[in-house]
Amino acid sequence: MNNLFATAFPADGNLLVHTLAKGHVADLVEYLNTLPDDEAAAALAALPPEQAVEVFDRPELNRASELLVSLPGAASAHILREMSADRAADVLRVLDRGAQALLLAPLEPEPAGTLRRLLAYPEHSAGSLMTTEFVALPTTVTVAEALRHIREVERTRETIYALYLLDPATRALVRTISLRRLITGEPEQKVMDLALAREPVTVSAETDRTDVARLFARHDLLAVPVVDARQQLLGIVTVDDVIDAIVDQGTEDTHRFGGMEAVDKPYLRIGFLEMLRKRAGWLCVLFVSEMLTASAMQHFEAELEKAIVLTLFIPLIMSSGGNSGSQATSLLIRALALGQVRLRDWWRVMLRELPTGLTLGAILGGMGMLRIAAWQQLGFYDYGEHWFLIALTVGLGLVGIVLFGSMAGSMLPFALKRLGFDPASASAPFVATLVDVTGLVIYFSVALLVLSGTLL
Amino acid sequence: MNNLFATAFPADGNLLVHTLAKGHVADLVEYLNTLPDDEAAAALAALPPEQAVEVFDRPELNRASELLVSLPGAASAHILREMSADRAADVLRVLDRGAQALLLAPLEPEPAGTLRRLLAYPEHSAGSLMTTEFVALPTTVTVAEALRHIREVERTRETIYALYLLDPATRALVRTISLRRLITGEPEQKVMDLALAREPVTVSAETDRTDVARLFARHDLLAVPVVDARQQLLGIVTVDDVIDAIVDQGTEDTHRFGGMEAVDKPYLRIGFLEMLRKRAGWLCVLFVSEMLTASAMQHFEAELEKAIVLTLFIPLIMSSGGNSGSQATSLLIRALALGQVRLRDWWRVMLRELPTGLTLGAILGGMGMLRIAAWQQLGFYDYGEHWFLIALTVGLGLVGIVLFGSMAGSMLPFALKRLGFDPASASAPFVATLVDVTGLVIYFSVALLVLSGTLL
Repeated sequence: MNNLFATAFPADGNLLVHTLAKGHVADLVEYLNTLPDDEAAAALAALPPEQAVEVFDRPELNRASELLVSLPGAASAHILREMSADRAADVLRVLDRGAQALLLAPLEPEPAGTLRRLLAYPEHSAGSLMTTEFVALPTTVTVAEALRHIREVERTRETIYALYLLDPATRALVRTISLRRLITGEPEQKVMDLALAREPVTVSAETDRTDVARLFARHDLLAVPVVDARQQLLGIVTVDDVIDAIVDQGTEDTHRFGGMEAVDKPYLRIGFLEMLRKRAGWLCVLFVSEMLTASAMQHFEAELEKAIVLTLFIPLIMSSGGNSGSQATSLLIRALALGQVRLRDWWRVMLRELPTGLTLGAILGGMGMLRIAAWQQLGFYDYGEHWFLIALTVGLGLVGIVLFGSMAGSMLPFALKRLGFDPASASAPFVATLVDVTGLVIYFSVALLVLSGTLL
Repeated sequence: MNNLFATAFPADGNLLVHTLAKGHVADLVEYLNTLPDDEAAAALAALPPEQAVEVFDRPELNRASELLVSLPGAASAHILREMSADRAADVLRVLDRGAQALLLAPLEPEPAGTLRRLLAYPEHSAGSLMTTEFVALPTTVTVAEALRHIREVERTRETIYALYLLDPATRALVRTISLRRLITGEPEQKVMDLALAREPVTVSAETDRTDVARLFARHDLLAVPVVDARQQLLGIVTVDDVIDAIVDQGTEDTHRFGGMEAVDKPYLRIGFLEMLRKRAGWLCVLFVSEMLTASAMQHFEAELEKAIVLTLFIPLIMSSGGNSGSQATSLLIRALALGQVRLRDWWRVMLRELPTGLTLGAILGGMGMLRIAAWQQLGFYDYGEHWFLIALTVGLGLVGIVLFGSMAGSMLPFALKRLGFDPASASAPFVATLVDVTGLVIYFSVALLVLSGTLL
């Protein structure tokens, strides 16, 4: 088995093994990521089998699925068998059913069955993150027996720091105990007597990764058991997978807040068509919604023609509304994601955004009026005899628009959550678009109020 | 000591102890967070000392510093002595020097010295995250000796799953070994023989938390040692603190991408003045920059007066530039944060954004032209005899602006990084503002080109 990989590219293989075998796997993965497809495949085929397994165990390995497919059948089967089951399922998940079946065919029934079960769980669920390689013990076991068992199975378990105590009759999960607590016990002591008298923290296979992550942060966990309705232990999610999940989720949330669909590939590996697909969708939706601004402008065309000076401040005023909205949305997306604020708190948030939006609007409104007054007095530009009324229009318009931006921006995540969407789909461009149309209406309404009888 | 807390509020105390002592600490913390200041202080004072320590050990506890100050001196000293040193330093860090000195005064020299050292490290550095409660062993120790030592000190160490082997002479860090590897050894075996023959992964006390987090994700660590230039072990950063740091960083990045200063408090606990301070600064900076749009519009006033129909599309066109810029920025902020793209890759990114921006611009430009043609042909609005030239202006303007938005949005994070700023300070409103002024100039330049001789 040791030579299975080396036969294909003996020369390359020896060189690579010599150069890289002594370093950190992470560095080897990084190096493989820089190689073209065929060279990476050749290099992998030339690695000693144990190291190829370690490489595939890393979520940082790019093109893992393609590389696995490119290996000889015996090599890919060995890797799938030896690598951690949760990661193997991740690698298989992106392939089509045919390729999956081809890779699973040479495996023994047991590992193949585990992988098929893991593949059946929805993306980003605890089930898709979990590994079945945990240490379970009957509640009747002693410390010495437990330690002996742990030593025996250590090599094939993802973690041995959290141990799961099952009812010997029903196999239901009864308690969780940490290795650190276990080793403080006397050899003949019952493990059950050392465990904390607390129901273990568990998740179901359908729990979303963000909720799993929140549980880890809340309880400082190293692993969480995944159970079904009958408290049967299906697997465990370990902290390293949770860290990867939180980092992925951060990328996804940033992309969505930027107004596009999330991409889970490194930037330079996103294909041209995929890039267009992820960006064009939202861009078109926002564009079509923003067309309403053209309609709003057409509606106020008579006013525009009479007081063309009003158009000068449209970009300034609209952007201020979008900016204040974007601030409020970013605050509330995180507050909702971290559970600091619940759906029923929407009115508390509104009560805080009202004075905040008013004050921010007053600050910007004051600055806008000062700008117009200064340009007029210093002779940079002549806004005509009614320049003060124009300044007042801009000032009051800003108060209204910034207030509206803060309110709309803070309420949008609540509205999305209420409608069953992820509050994090409220992007900055989304809020800006929402505020733009209303902003124009506010601006022109203020203008009609302030300037009617003079300019309008 | 056991009654130290209970004396202050015996009745409340018994009730609380009865109700909460059996649950998860996380639930107790959540309950305390909902109480008004004085009731939370009273409840804490009434808890058994060990549980008060557990509560203060949770970063989720709001107002931890204020609550600690409100406790009797003996109680706060007990908590500071018993809680984990890194968390204690976090609680002290937000207090002024006077309050810190007052709380540290009743402590013994050793814990007080440790806390003073931790307090000296900059915010968000590995030094500020680390704990000094780790297990260090001389390289000469056997497995049995190591296990005996671990059992003895287990209660007072933050983790015992990563063990640090020091040179007996210089006390420099030589190897890291995991407990799981240790327990697979024979009792008389040297620990050093079990450790992997690899330099341990380490960080310095100044390493930023984002880099620490990246290292954890990369190497699937449970703890990382913090060493000085002479490889002396200063402390360790454990995975639970890293998860908290990643979540905090996610909040900070979202707030900044939304165009405001980051706030590290739960939304409903941010005071009115603090809220204004965090939001008004950027809002004013963006407002002043956006004033340039008014100047740009003034510059093109003659054209505006001749072809007022051009103003109708200004909001639509400007927002499209901002949206495409926001997309590109969100992509590159993450790509840079995750190390998928380096500073020197800026030209590769530019080469990818060029065709992407052109295509996205062509899609939106086509939609914009269709909209104008449709409204004209269906009689919804009359753009005049030169309606096709106006549609062409809008279409070409959109190509130019979306292209410019994608380029500017993708290059901004690079520019910030090059200038020594965090690329994540590139917010969506920042990009939109950058694109707005140039967008106007592009639009009017296209208009001059297409419409000169007819409308202009």
